[in-house]
Amino acid sequence: MSGFRHVVMFRWAEGTTIGQQEEVAARLRELTGVIPEIRGYSVGLDAGVNPGSYEFVVVADFAGKDDYLVYRDHPAHRAVIDEFITPIVAERAAIQYET
Amino acid sequence: MSGFRHVVMFRWAEGTTIGQQEEVAARLRELTGVIPEIRGYSVGLDAGVNPGSYEFVVVADFAGKDDYLVYRDHPAHRAVIDEFITPIVAERAAIQYET
Repeated sequence: MSGFRHVVMFRWAEGTTIGQQEEVAARLRELTGVIPEIRGYSVGLDAGVNPGSYEFVVVADFAGKDDYLVYRDHPAHRAVIDEFITPIVAERAAIQYET
Repeated sequence: MSGFRHVVMFRWAEGTTIGQQEEVAARLRELTGVIPEIRGYSVGLDAGVNPGSYEFVVVADFAGKDDYLVYRDHPAHRAVIDEFITPIVAERAAIQYET
């Protein structure tokens, strides 16, 4: 099934706890019940296999670019970013692509 | 279905062409016929929606960590990295996580 995928990774500020990361993960997962445009949503913490890895990842699937834009700009999503992600983020890597 | 996911993004050296990126994508996709441990494999170029995005992404799914390690260290994969990716890579962001 063709679609549109958003992938984002984060590194957190020094001192960020696993609990804080799990809070971010939980808040993000709640968005799947709020934003019906989300077709698939996967959140994870780095498994610790390779040195130099990012710490946190989101892979979100949509039917198309327009549905992704609804998610990107949705107030519930922006609230999670503003309240839980921005305060602890150190580095961000993102991409969107047609699947 | 639970599993193990590897996600990697690249930024390429200045002057890298779309053709070179498509060559990397094609060579990577061939790995799905060579490494049976690959359960799912998605390769894409940035859709150009947001400024500052990475340029190229791979999302690879495996049954578990051990299968990912087979892929990571497989000679056919290392050959694609050495011949097609390393010569043009500028920046790399990666993570592995349990799905």
